[in-house]
Amino acid sequence: MKFFLEPRSVVLIGVSRQTGAGAYNNFEVMRRYGYPGNIYLVHPKVKEILGQKTFPQVADLPETPDLAVISLGRERVLGVFRECLEQGIKRVVVISQGFADADARGKELQEKLVHMAREHGVRVIGPNTMGIVNAWSCFSTAFVDIPREAPPPPMTLVVQSGVFQAGYPNFTGHLGKSIDIGNAGDVDFVDLLEFLEHDPQTRIIMLHMEGIKRGRKFLEVAARVARHKPIVVLKTGRSTAGAEAALSHTGSLVGEDAIFDLAFRRCGLIRVRNLVELRAVAKALLHFRPPAGPRLGMVTATGAFGIVAADACEDYGLELAPFPEGSRDDLENPHIAWHRLHNPVDIWPLGMVSGSFAGVFTKAAKALIQDERVDALLGVCPSWASPLHADIDMVAAVREIQAANPSQKPLALCPYGDDTLRQGQALDQVPGVACFDTLDEAILSLAATWRWHRMVVGGGQGSQTLLPSSPKPPSPTPYRGLERECGGTAPLKAGLLVGEEAMALLADYGIPLVPGRLVQQEAEAVAAAGKFGYPAVLKIISPQWLHKSDLGGVLLNLGGEAELRKAYTALTEAFSRQTPGGQLQGILVQKQVRGVELLFGLKQDPQFGPVLVAGMGGIYTEIFQDVAREFPPVSRVAAATLLRSLKIYPILEGVRGQAGVSLASLEDLILALSCLAEDHPEIAEMDLNPVVADAQGCWCVDCRVVVAE
Amino acid sequence: MKFFLEPRSVVLIGVSRQTGAGAYNNFEVMRRYGYPGNIYLVHPKVKEILGQKTFPQVADLPETPDLAVISLGRERVLGVFRECLEQGIKRVVVISQGFADADARGKELQEKLVHMAREHGVRVIGPNTMGIVNAWSCFSTAFVDIPREAPPPPMTLVVQSGVFQAGYPNFTGHLGKSIDIGNAGDVDFVDLLEFLEHDPQTRIIMLHMEGIKRGRKFLEVAARVARHKPIVVLKTGRSTAGAEAALSHTGSLVGEDAIFDLAFRRCGLIRVRNLVELRAVAKALLHFRPPAGPRLGMVTATGAFGIVAADACEDYGLELAPFPEGSRDDLENPHIAWHRLHNPVDIWPLGMVSGSFAGVFTKAAKALIQDERVDALLGVCPSWASPLHADIDMVAAVREIQAANPSQKPLALCPYGDDTLRQGQALDQVPGVACFDTLDEAILSLAATWRWHRMVVGGGQGSQTLLPSSPKPPSPTPYRGLERECGGTAPLKAGLLVGEEAMALLADYGIPLVPGRLVQQEAEAVAAAGKFGYPAVLKIISPQWLHKSDLGGVLLNLGGEAELRKAYTALTEAFSRQTPGGQLQGILVQKQVRGVELLFGLKQDPQFGPVLVAGMGGIYTEIFQDVAREFPPVSRVAAATLLRSLKIYPILEGVRGQAGVSLASLEDLILALSCLAEDHPEIAEMDLNPVVADAQGCWCVDCRVVVAE
Repeated sequence: MKFFLEPRSVVLIGVSRQTGAGAYNNFEVMRRYGYPGNIYLVHPKVKEILGQKTFPQVADLPETPDLAVISLGRERVLGVFRECLEQGIKRVVVISQGFADADARGKELQEKLVHMAREHGVRVIGPNTMGIVNAWSCFSTAFVDIPREAPPPPMTLVVQSGVFQAGYPNFTGHLGKSIDIGNAGDVDFVDLLEFLEHDPQTRIIMLHMEGIKRGRKFLEVAARVARHKPIVVLKTGRSTAGAEAALSHTGSLVGEDAIFDLAFRRCGLIRVRNLVELRAVAKALLHFRPPAGPRLGMVTATGAFGIVAADACEDYGLELAPFPEGSRDDLENPHIAWHRLHNPVDIWPLGMVSGSFAGVFTKAAKALIQDERVDALLGVCPSWASPLHADIDMVAAVREIQAANPSQKPLALCPYGDDTLRQGQALDQVPGVACFDTLDEAILSLAATWRWHRMVVGGGQGSQTLLPSSPKPPSPTPYRGLERECGGTAPLKAGLLVGEEAMALLADYGIPLVPGRLVQQEAEAVAAAGKFGYPAVLKIISPQWLHKSDLGGVLLNLGGEAELRKAYTALTEAFSRQTPGGQLQGILVQKQVRGVELLFGLKQDPQFGPVLVAGMGGIYTEIFQDVAREFPPVSRVAAATLLRSLKIYPILEGVRGQAGVSLASLEDLILALSCLAEDHPEIAEMDLNPVVADAQGCWCVDCRVVVAE
Repeated sequence: MKFFLEPRSVVLIGVSRQTGAGAYNNFEVMRRYGYPGNIYLVHPKVKEILGQKTFPQVADLPETPDLAVISLGRERVLGVFRECLEQGIKRVVVISQGFADADARGKELQEKLVHMAREHGVRVIGPNTMGIVNAWSCFSTAFVDIPREAPPPPMTLVVQSGVFQAGYPNFTGHLGKSIDIGNAGDVDFVDLLEFLEHDPQTRIIMLHMEGIKRGRKFLEVAARVARHKPIVVLKTGRSTAGAEAALSHTGSLVGEDAIFDLAFRRCGLIRVRNLVELRAVAKALLHFRPPAGPRLGMVTATGAFGIVAADACEDYGLELAPFPEGSRDDLENPHIAWHRLHNPVDIWPLGMVSGSFAGVFTKAAKALIQDERVDALLGVCPSWASPLHADIDMVAAVREIQAANPSQKPLALCPYGDDTLRQGQALDQVPGVACFDTLDEAILSLAATWRWHRMVVGGGQGSQTLLPSSPKPPSPTPYRGLERECGGTAPLKAGLLVGEEAMALLADYGIPLVPGRLVQQEAEAVAAAGKFGYPAVLKIISPQWLHKSDLGGVLLNLGGEAELRKAYTALTEAFSRQTPGGQLQGILVQKQVRGVELLFGLKQDPQFGPVLVAGMGGIYTEIFQDVAREFPPVSRVAAATLLRSLKIYPILEGVRGQAGVSLASLEDLILALSCLAEDHPEIAEMDLNPVVADAQGCWCVDCRVVVAE
């Protein structure tokens, strides 16, 4: 990766002959960015560009450059790429568009390119990229002129679009080094994270992700890197419409958004939802340490904003710290007896009486920041250009506060008034301080960085959700119902498993099934129901009646033998009438169980592999979508956490005098599914729905399994 | 109100003797703001301030000023206020803090002040206010120096904190006139809206609201004003913690947030959630017409932002318009055959080939904005200071686009790069154009202003939720079960109604009850259950067992006489054992009904009066909080809309082969409750829970009514 970011020499192929305004000439841009290495230009026709001699082809170069940058039309890329390989060039950036981001032809071209690269041990960034912009090495392959920050900030961007490089002042605010992986044909997020893990110039990593290919590997690497360096991810294509646009943009596979959510949470990544959050969180990470807890102390020059802050704390998951009672006498002013302080500390009346806003602000801020129950400080302060307010020197005040802040708790400021731009810049220079445009941005960034601290440094709730740092997590705790170790079973036959076949698979893993028997005769049905006990259920089992509920093929609440016989006749008659010549495998007699209806399942995600699902079953499933997900293998603790994360967990525990359900039996079921997922990676989808749970245990009532080829 | 906003003369009482930096002298500020009227100063000791003679008391003034501004300590306010009344002053601003915003003493002082004012026909703004800042009349009562915009924008702020005046550049961006009503002791939101309705200098109204007192009147006036002038409201104190802070800040009553939501929706107000939204929506309203529909056309210089926009559209409720197929040949470039356009239109490849980004941007934008299926246009464009990009003249491009935009569809822009501040200002000058810092702000503001258009101009879905413009809505459509007109009944006795008393009230309104009888003997229970049909339910009725479910006082699913008898004995024994000496009113025998469990109710809101509630009943009520609210009286259409707004509505309609429930019977029940609310304003709270519904009808199973004194 080093040769991509700090090449000693580079060849530009497809450089524009135009220069100056409107040229988009990457040679011109590279020079302006200050690149000190050798730049070679390949151009078939023009002899020189900007006074520098060009070469007709790559073979004519006097040395083998560390890096080639190709900006040709897509049909000419492969030929030149082969030339580069022949000349021994080991690193190539393919700027050109029109590959997997475009059409079938482009996809084919990209596959060929990647195949050639792998054959020759050559690494490629792109296609469809602006490449590298590295303020540390003064190197830029961009064809737009991007200002270079000096000294470079320790913030590295890995993105799938050059807009985050070209517009970084608006998006991340800063850019130390950046890599646009574009379509990620070869070099991908995993490669970059592995490099950045040990890069001393990178303290903060910002990802713009449209899709991912090596999901499982990403989980492993990201979880390891995020322990040392905060990783912020803007995953776009959350919406259906967005996902469509993503396919046409980078050709990445876009997965179900909830699974990305799970993946990021499990790795300890900070996910931002939009560009407002991206900018705010980037600033927070660059300016101050993440808070070690969620308790906010606040000093405000207006009571109204104490209320706004309380709203924002609730929105983003922080809380207001208790007021530091020990400082009350010192802070309150006996001349305004009616003014009782709390947190947020409204200093306006104090300032009006004492005559020094900066003074009372400083005093209150110091009291808060030195209180051990305060994890971060937020200040709302006026910033006016008027000479009438020249007495408010917030910069001096904030320096004084920081001098009394040895544990470096974060200090976020929201200046307001007509001079916030100028004063905000001055305040941003004070170490450990960051100014935000709005209180919402300040609070969301404190909340997001605290979540990272909680996930990674641990101690708080939620830290257990992080993936273990060893590549292979420990095998799940054994559960009742399975004697053997997971693994080593023969693969299942491809196709759809329903009815007894599916249930038999569950039984192998010790998953309890509702008592039932597939019968061919009414008398058998009566005998079975008598054995299980009433009420009973009858169901039509037929490949023609897969959606049997919708077709009326399920009759519930059969209270006794007479009702059962009537129902049996009704079902068989309905089957013959509605599907003449259909294949009736039999009538399933089940004991009717009552309890909480749940649903469990497995899904093979194209990026991240098997995902285990638990949720509310029954008719409300789709409406409330109360579903939680986890990557197998899961431990018993993780199984319990999964259940606890459901909204209906209070029902499972028992509410309003009602008995709860057997949580242990549900944990066993989750462990069994986890084992199933390990044994049978060929399972594409699997639904246990419903699973009925009561205080005694749980029983799977129906199951369906899709086995991939 | 005119004399508050444009007084011909004003007296300042309690003006500071200090001037210059740190003085907070409202006389000095008033002069600097350019006020041309007479200013009188009252000061007991100092002879002159800033070269102007002072008067020892109000009685010494040579004329009766239009307005007095009092800035004294709270204990001195009432005396001076009386002096003002005696001198015939009709308008007073009380800047001073420490009234209802502080403690019991302050509340008492405020009540006295308001009482005196009302007795003398004098209007008061405040206490606890910064008063008036009016750029139109160059009048400011503020004690901080606020820059005056010229020409003044047609945007009026009504706020409960001076911070929105002092910091308007950060919050609303602009300020034409503004009134801080502070504690709203006298002048309140209703007064101001009534005035602003006919104020030609006000086109847009921005409210910062911490609480409200005349809720019902506010509904009536706001619904009328919002028809002509968009009203944006930032209601703070959404969270529990926020509501606590609100009480201590302005002494307003803070109501349940969901009811404010309902109120704002019914009036056609644009509610913003936070300061990011406030600023964005203010800008949109000031710069362009609200879109007439939700369909967004987008031109972007980066494909990545098409995806970000799709995400944001889903977040905020817009949609991407279809691509204007008629312009495809004109827009696509045959030299890049792989590049197939869709909306968002990614112009990057086109710009690279044609060599003119501004040109392709303009062409695509014109095609979109002239398409009738596009309601608003969003542009993402680079804005670089580099001389290499001097060819991109977006200002000229945007002028050309607007010349081709006769129907004045809104044009929102998100420039990115290192020159957005400067270019953004230039672009903001083009009529009908607004630049936003982020795409999220652009899209949320388009969505919010569209919702206003939809609510007010109508045509789309949602327009029916607006309150009728006449003060008294029509009486509800009659419903089955009530022969008489609503109204004119005797009030209920104060206290708690449960059991048969409560059910009898429902029966009076034709609300169907589950068959039941309160019995004293086991034999009676058997007879009743036999009559209703099994399964049956038995419930303990006792004032000591109000939470009977939690205590085990409800036995369900009694399938026959033997089970019923056993249950009867079990309940009476449990009662004697658990509450010896308790008052057992009887055992309630009910038919057990099966179906969807719902909950209905009424609640008297302190601000807005009666509120009707419908929602999901049963054990999931608290977990999913699937509840909808409406102000009575409701029509049958409104009752149907209320049901339709529930998440569980699909279940009510019938899903997956299951029969739905009788919607007509639920509408009848809602109309009955609406009538009950009209007849009995003394009902403080009323719960019908559960109401069980099936395809045949619905039945209330239990009811509880709290009647206020």
